[in-house]
Amino acid sequence: MAETRFDIVAMGDAIVDVIASCDEDFLVNHRLPKGSMQLLTPQAADSLYAAMGQAREMSGGSAANSMAGIAAMGARSAFIGQVAGDQLGTIFAHDMHALGVHFDTPPLSFGPPTGRCLILVTPDGQRTMNTAPGASHELDVSALDEALVRDSAILFLEGYLFGPARPRAAMMRAVDIAHAAGRKVAFTLSESVCIADRKAGFHAMLDGGGVDLLFANEDEALQLTGRTGLEEALAELSQKVPTLVITRGAAGALAVEDGKTVRIPAMPVPNVVDTTGAGDLFAAGFLTARVKGAPLAKCLSTGAIAAAEIISHYGARPEADLKEWIEL
Amino acid sequence: MAETRFDIVAMGDAIVDVIASCDEDFLVNHRLPKGSMQLLTPQAADSLYAAMGQAREMSGGSAANSMAGIAAMGARSAFIGQVAGDQLGTIFAHDMHALGVHFDTPPLSFGPPTGRCLILVTPDGQRTMNTAPGASHELDVSALDEALVRDSAILFLEGYLFGPARPRAAMMRAVDIAHAAGRKVAFTLSESVCIADRKAGFHAMLDGGGVDLLFANEDEALQLTGRTGLEEALAELSQKVPTLVITRGAAGALAVEDGKTVRIPAMPVPNVVDTTGAGDLFAAGFLTARVKGAPLAKCLSTGAIAAAEIISHYGARPEADLKEWIEL
Repeated sequence: MAETRFDIVAMGDAIVDVIASCDEDFLVNHRLPKGSMQLLTPQAADSLYAAMGQAREMSGGSAANSMAGIAAMGARSAFIGQVAGDQLGTIFAHDMHALGVHFDTPPLSFGPPTGRCLILVTPDGQRTMNTAPGASHELDVSALDEALVRDSAILFLEGYLFGPARPRAAMMRAVDIAHAAGRKVAFTLSESVCIADRKAGFHAMLDGGGVDLLFANEDEALQLTGRTGLEEALAELSQKVPTLVITRGAAGALAVEDGKTVRIPAMPVPNVVDTTGAGDLFAAGFLTARVKGAPLAKCLSTGAIAAAEIISHYGARPEADLKEWIEL
Repeated sequence: MAETRFDIVAMGDAIVDVIASCDEDFLVNHRLPKGSMQLLTPQAADSLYAAMGQAREMSGGSAANSMAGIAAMGARSAFIGQVAGDQLGTIFAHDMHALGVHFDTPPLSFGPPTGRCLILVTPDGQRTMNTAPGASHELDVSALDEALVRDSAILFLEGYLFGPARPRAAMMRAVDIAHAAGRKVAFTLSESVCIADRKAGFHAMLDGGGVDLLFANEDEALQLTGRTGLEEALAELSQKVPTLVITRGAAGALAVEDGKTVRIPAMPVPNVVDTTGAGDLFAAGFLTARVKGAPLAKCLSTGAIAAAEIISHYGARPEADLKEWIEL
């Protein structure tokens, strides 16, 4: 495989997080299942925002967070995602560039505003996400920079953005381009609540050989396979993808590759502040170690370290000097 | 004095802070004097923003931060300031309302965007502020809610906004309205670098009896009086205002009123993260204690506690439950 310009290019939601603390009652009163992600209409988003406390804004988006983490850890990352030509879009693009992530998807000059994710953090550090995707779900195949996909060793796709038809079509096209160029495709299932209505699409992609590396958490693996036990789910999924990576929260993480299973324990985190971005940074750590040629166990532990950093503060973008933490 | 609808109404910059970490070299390379505040042209702001690292956005503005703190401590506060009809303006208004601060200055539908303050925080926790005031400096006397000023026990004015002619005229008008209604006027000098070019205006206001309560730090008191010793500066300023409050950083704070001087030591803060908002929250604590009828020493110590909370985390809006901290 020839040298590529980027190690990883991702396609995902281009979103600014709006993060506020709340108490448990607030979630109950607004009927928001704790720890979940729901999509909001613009009206529902405005109404929830009005009810929320004082907030801080930080660039977010699941795969975008992963690319930010990868850049912070010293690998070469790029991002494809749709913002609008507004102030939040400018903030999103600034933060990508500031981290050294290549990002040049042109902002939309019409249609909905840049997407927001209203994130409510309870005192236990759990985040409940409420996404008004806005321009993000308008990502069209015409905005796909095909040369960028060809010129990146790994194409990384986010399950959240696989729901709406338009960006899904762009993702499917990107998979074809990547594979035709001899690149690998990594996919993250993103969220168990997303799976129900896109299960057929996920399975078609997996069965069609579209995915070389699948990231999922335990819940997502069970949901996708319809199994009740993790071992059965692993057996099924590992038949469909060359590399399967499963995160299990406090139970650690595991990977199945070439018929072998590698397991690591979870990293102890003394003070969990905000769990937003844990999965995103796990993927970032894993992929960074992977492109640096680390063995599978090291890829898992690098993911765990990056996830531990992100949950020890507010927001889903790294604060500490991750390069020093990971020792690759 | 009849019962009022609000304890305190402030006029100040309506600004969103854009906060990023940087190293000492960044300040040197961009010729930014550490710890200072400078006004930027829109072009200079765009260029500095492009050079800055990944940022978080939080509502700011000096007097606005004070009103946020006052509301968090359980007093009734209101704010008058100018935003534009854009996303940052919506964020600013949301955060005021979320904290229970009355704010209904109509957004500008033309002209510059909502103001931003690009804040660079060095590893020692010092903040260097770079303000692109935008719509904030367009505050016009026509936007002044005169009934709101009449209906608030204290009018609180921010020195930063006293520079540009248009908001200064609105402030002078507000002082007349407040005094005609039997209200008190508090004024904060805001920043020693602001004083040089607005010294005459400050003195005219003080000499004309416009100010009942003056907040300044040691530097500002020396700059304004042109004295070299604090005692001489105190002697001069305390002739001009019924209540003089001086903050001295690690040396604590003092107040001069009715010929008596009260001094308190500084609060120890184990982990200074970001000094942004220290003066704003000191004023908030002092004023909250004041409107609750606390004695002068208690007003000073309440200010010190509120300032200690704000410098122990990023951003100039309170995070802890300040009401519990201050025990009024």
